[in-house]
Parts: sequence; C-alpha cells; structure tokens
Amino acid sequence: MSEFLSRRLTGLKPYVPGEQPQERQYIKLNTNESPFPPSPLAMYMARRQLSELNLYSDPECRLLTGAACEALGVNEDEIVFGNGSDEILNFAFAAFCDTETGAVFPDITYGFYRVFADFYGISRSVIPLNSVFEIDPEEYAEAGGTVFIANPNAPTGIALPLCDVERIVASNPRNVVVVDEVYVDFGGQSALPLIRKYSNLLVVRTFSKSRSLAGGRLGFGIACPSIISDLNKVRFSTNPYNVNRMTMAAGAGAFADTEYFEKCVAEIKKNRSFITEKLKKLGFYVTESSANFVFARHETLSGGFVCSALKERGILVRHFDGERIKDFNRITVGSAAEMEKLAMTLEEIL
Amino acid sequence: MSEFLSRRLTGLKPYVPGEQPQERQYIKLNTNESPFPPSPLAMYMARRQLSELNLYSDPECRLLTGAACEALGVNEDEIVFGNGSDEILNFAFAAFCDTETGAVFPDITYGFYRVFADFYGISRSVIPLNSVFEIDPEEYAEAGGTVFIANPNAPTGIALPLCDVERIVASNPRNVVVVDEVYVDFGGQSALPLIRKYSNLLVVRTFSKSRSLAGGRLGFGIACPSIISDLNKVRFSTNPYNVNRMTMAAGAGAFADTEYFEKCVAEIKKNRSFITEKLKKLGFYVTESSANFVFARHETLSGGFVCSALKERGILVRHFDGERIKDFNRITVGSAAEMEKLAMTLEEIL
Repeated sequence: MSEFLSRRLTGLKPYVPGEQPQERQYIKLNTNESPFPPSPLAMYMARRQLSELNLYSDPECRLLTGAACEALGVNEDEIVFGNGSDEILNFAFAAFCDTETGAVFPDITYGFYRVFADFYGISRSVIPLNSVFEIDPEEYAEAGGTVFIANPNAPTGIALPLCDVERIVASNPRNVVVVDEVYVDFGGQSALPLIRKYSNLLVVRTFSKSRSLAGGRLGFGIACPSIISDLNKVRFSTNPYNVNRMTMAAGAGAFADTEYFEKCVAEIKKNRSFITEKLKKLGFYVTESSANFVFARHETLSGGFVCSALKERGILVRHFDGERIKDFNRITVGSAAEMEKLAMTLEEIL
Repeated sequence: MSEFLSRRLTGLKPYVPGEQPQERQYIKLNTNESPFPPSPLAMYMARRQLSELNLYSDPECRLLTGAACEALGVNEDEIVFGNGSDEILNFAFAAFCDTETGAVFPDITYGFYRVFADFYGISRSVIPLNSVFEIDPEEYAEAGGTVFIANPNAPTGIALPLCDVERIVASNPRNVVVVDEVYVDFGGQSALPLIRKYSNLLVVRTFSKSRSLAGGRLGFGIACPSIISDLNKVRFSTNPYNVNRMTMAAGAGAFADTEYFEKCVAEIKKNRSFITEKLKKLGFYVTESSANFVFARHETLSGGFVCSALKERGILVRHFDGERIKDFNRITVGSAAEMEKLAMTLEEIL
C-alpha cells in the first residue's frame, strides 16, 4: 500500500478469485468454467477480427446486439454488454447505489456483492438464508436498498422459483432488483420475461459458463430501456470500448450457434446427475443444484480436508471458510471423464 | 434516465468517443488508430487462445507481465494491465482521488480526465495551457491534488520535455502524478526511467496506437511497487479477470515483435512529416506533434467547416468544440496513401 491510497480503500478486502495455477496440470473444478471449448462458430468469428485489431471496437456493440436480439427476443435498447458480468454488476452498483441507497443481499451468495459495496463505500444489509440455504422472499419486501440476488445462488446452486423472484421485484417498487443469472442456463427459471412488466428489474447474464467464453470476458444486462440507459451512462463514463473486437465477434457467434449451446448444457446436466448420485453414495449431503456445480458436505470429513486431499491428487475444488458453509465444497461439473475421475479419487480418499 | 439513477450521476456528461461508422467505408483519421494490422506474432498468439476461451484468463497476467519485463526492463511488481489504458486511468482515479484529494489537469487535454473526476464526484482544478498550448511546470508545483498530464498532450500533440515532467513530479511529493503516455512512442520522452526515483509517479501506456491493438483493448501502468499494489487492489475489487485471454496473448506477441513495432512507428513519423508540410503549404497552422496525429487550424476556414467538408468526401477527422481549439482539427496520421488522399482532398476543398 502506498501513502497515497484513498482512506476509503485502505481497509477494503478485494475479491479472491479461484486459483488459476499455471505450473501444473490440474483437473480444474474450482471456478465453474465449462469443460468444452467455445462453439466453432464463435472461434471462427473471433479469428476473423485478428487482422482488424488496429481499429477500435464498436462502442455501440451493434453486431453483438443484433445477435442478442435474435437469440433472446429482446430489443436493442433493452441490453448492455460488459467485460464479463462482473462489469455489469459494477455498473449497477455505480448507477443504483450511493450513500443514501445501500445494497441488500443474502449472507451466503456471490462474494463480489460485498466487495463492490465496500469499494463504493455503500452500506450493506445482509439477510441470512434460511437453514437449508434458501431465500425467503418475504424478507426482501421493501428491502430499502438495491437488491442483489444470484439465481441460481452461488455457491449453493439452489434456484428460487420465478414466482418468488417476481414477489421480490414487485415488493421493491422504489429500488432496483438485480437478478444475477450467470448460472440460469443450467436449470433455473429466468426473470427475463418480467423485464417489460417491471421497470425496476435488471437481469444479469454471462457467456462464461454455458457458452464456454470465461476467458473471452463477456457479460450482459437486460432491463427496460431507462435502466439500460443508466448503465450505458456509466459505461460511457468509464470505458466506452469495454468489449474488445474478438470477444464481441465470439459472442455473436456463440449466440447464433444454438445447437452447440444446447448440447453443452445437456451434457453438463447429465454429468451433474451422475456426480450428485455418486457423492450421495459416498456419504455427502448435496444441495439441489440448478447450476454447473454442486455444493457438497461430507458426513464426517471437514470441507477443508476434502479440498486439500483432492488438491494433493490433482483436482481443484473451491472451499470457502464462511462459518455456515465451511464444511462444504463447491465442485464444478466438468466432463464425464472428469466426473468419473473425481468419483474415483473421492473413493480413494475415503 | 430511470428514477433509480443515483443523484450523483444525473448531471454527469459521459465521454464521447470518435465516430465509429459501420455503414460506410470512410478513411478514418478521427480516433488515432494505427493504419497497420497488429504484428503477425500478436495475431498468431491470440489465435492460439481461441480453443481455450472456456478457461478464465490468468488474473496475475503472468505471460504478459513476463513479456513486458523483457521489453521494458521493469520488474513484475512494477506493472499492472488494464482493459485499455482508460481502465488504468479509472483505477488511478479510484485509488488516488477522493473528496479530500481532487484531480488537477490542463484545460486542453484528454477529455476523459474531466469525466472520471465527475463520475467519482471529485473536485477538479483545471490549469490553462499557455497561449501556444504548452504546459508550464511551475503552475503544477504543490498542485494540491492528483495530477493528470498527457505527454505528448492530446489533442495538441505537443510534448513536454522530460526535465519538465520531472519538475512536476518532484514538486508534488504529497500527491501522485499520472503521466499518460499513450502517444509517447511517436516522439515524446518517456518518464519510465523515473519510476525508481519517485514513489509518486505513475506512467500510463497503451497498445492501442503504436502496437496496433486498439480493438484488443490493452493498456498498462508502470510505477513503484506500492502504487502498483494500490491499483491491483482496485482491479481485484472490480474485475480480477479484466484482460481476456486473446488480448493477453496478443500483447505478449506485440511486445516480443520489436522489429514490427519499430517499422510501424518509423512509417508514422515519416507520414507525419509529409502531412505536416502539406498542411502548412495549404495555409494551415500545425502544432509541433510528437504523436500519431497532427493538430491543425486553417488561416481562413473554420474547424467545423473543414471537418464537415472532409466527411462529405469520405474522410473522418476529429473536431472538438472547446472555445480555445474550435478552429482546429485533430487528424490521425495514417498510411502514406491515406495522407496523400487527405492532401488531395484538402486541395480540392480549398
């Protein structure tokens, strides 16, 4: 830390991303990446941009927006793109939170909500999940701040039914409700159909998981035009060229290749069923996951032990040390071969 | 604008990037892009990442950092990468400005400094350039805020000698001085050699201009380790995966291909001399540019007229309507053919 750092940030604890080891080949089940390469069409379209990288990307994201409108049935003024969905969250915190309007989110959820709140010096109201890690929509009525809900939630994988999401949105007419749907393609019910009914709803999505573009960095927000216009105001005030040419083209290709997308999602769901059953047989309690990961606690072994024992054997999973979840591990659902290897390795450990 | 937008941002005027028309082929001399494609090595290395885009990029940017250390002679803890140099500026505003520490910059300079200050609600102290658009280092002594200086300056192209940059850095020991060197490869003297002498100096650079990667989005900051650590704190608190895999690889390739880089820069300098002479012969006053653009005012025609007349004839240049510079146009130095076409078109107009 330098002597020049703003006092506001001195106590800030940054987000800690999952390990990205470069030195050794691990089976990486710790950052919820897709085990499949991007769609061939996405790769082809990105490659065609290489010789034009000397030119700035289109700040209006026209090509990508067109593909999105086609794929999602939204209008051009209902979508905004970001350098990953984290950037869309960042825009939302900047636009809809301040010293008067704090942030409201569950105690167990995506760790970045806490970081953004602290980064912007915004008060946070944390609402505990119930004993089985579910969100109670009643507790979010008139929440008095901008609400951030991950659905399906992380790291639990548990999805909130659409009717409950709608209750939260409807019961907060004076605040924006951000529904962070980065995992929704694997099983949750999207709130997308509600954006024309509620002007306070922002749905956040990503290309990182179901569309195999984590390393391309592409996320988007969908909402009514006035919310999108606010987010674009933040975007044009910080980084108008936030999405690079290659990623923009890859995103358009990924949107167009519906068949590949559906094949990948179906495979992950199949592998999720497989590993869930295996884990249960091995004495794990596994939450009901609608995401591309499972959240599992062993009946006798500690979460930290399972995580370390797997790492020693070349498999990375994610362990969080929060009090209520320290006995769990979040395990990405990978390829069939990776899930079999995981099951075998766990048997070995036990 | 929605009813939910934070009051802090309601009056904010976002940055207006240069036009990026998609519908018609223009000769684009309005956004200071390189007329040359990226280095073949940069393209090759980016292409190799396509099939691994399902995996997150390395938040430590190790490959790219290694290439940077080699190319620039800095250490790993003296550099940080961003999604374009605008993101590095954003990090600097977040880290080193607040309600107590405002921002200080010239009246005529890169327009984004004003936008960032307003975005973060930071006071700004604006120091006018002298009558021939030069920075007087005396006026920045004990400036009482974080200093932002573009060197060479934009849109004037005028460079400040290194001894004057050092005077500003030395005379502000209690504040960070950000020297924004996005155009320095085309002629200015870099402040890089000073980073080990001054712990309050941050040098900002980009791959957008001299390395033909505007559409890849890659910038970096160089400073002493404590300043870099502060910027990384902001980065890990907003977007740890801010640089995508393709761009990271392209950047490493561009750093390694010194020969191509030098060839491109030499060509731009040659074309800059050519167009400067031509413009002078056509009755333009042209500032002494050390950048990849020239800044020119015609003796009789207004800046707005020249800009429109060129646009009608298929050539885009950038016109700013600030009072002191409204008679000028900023014209990117392109390929030899583009500069000849520009000269011919101006003759036609006149």
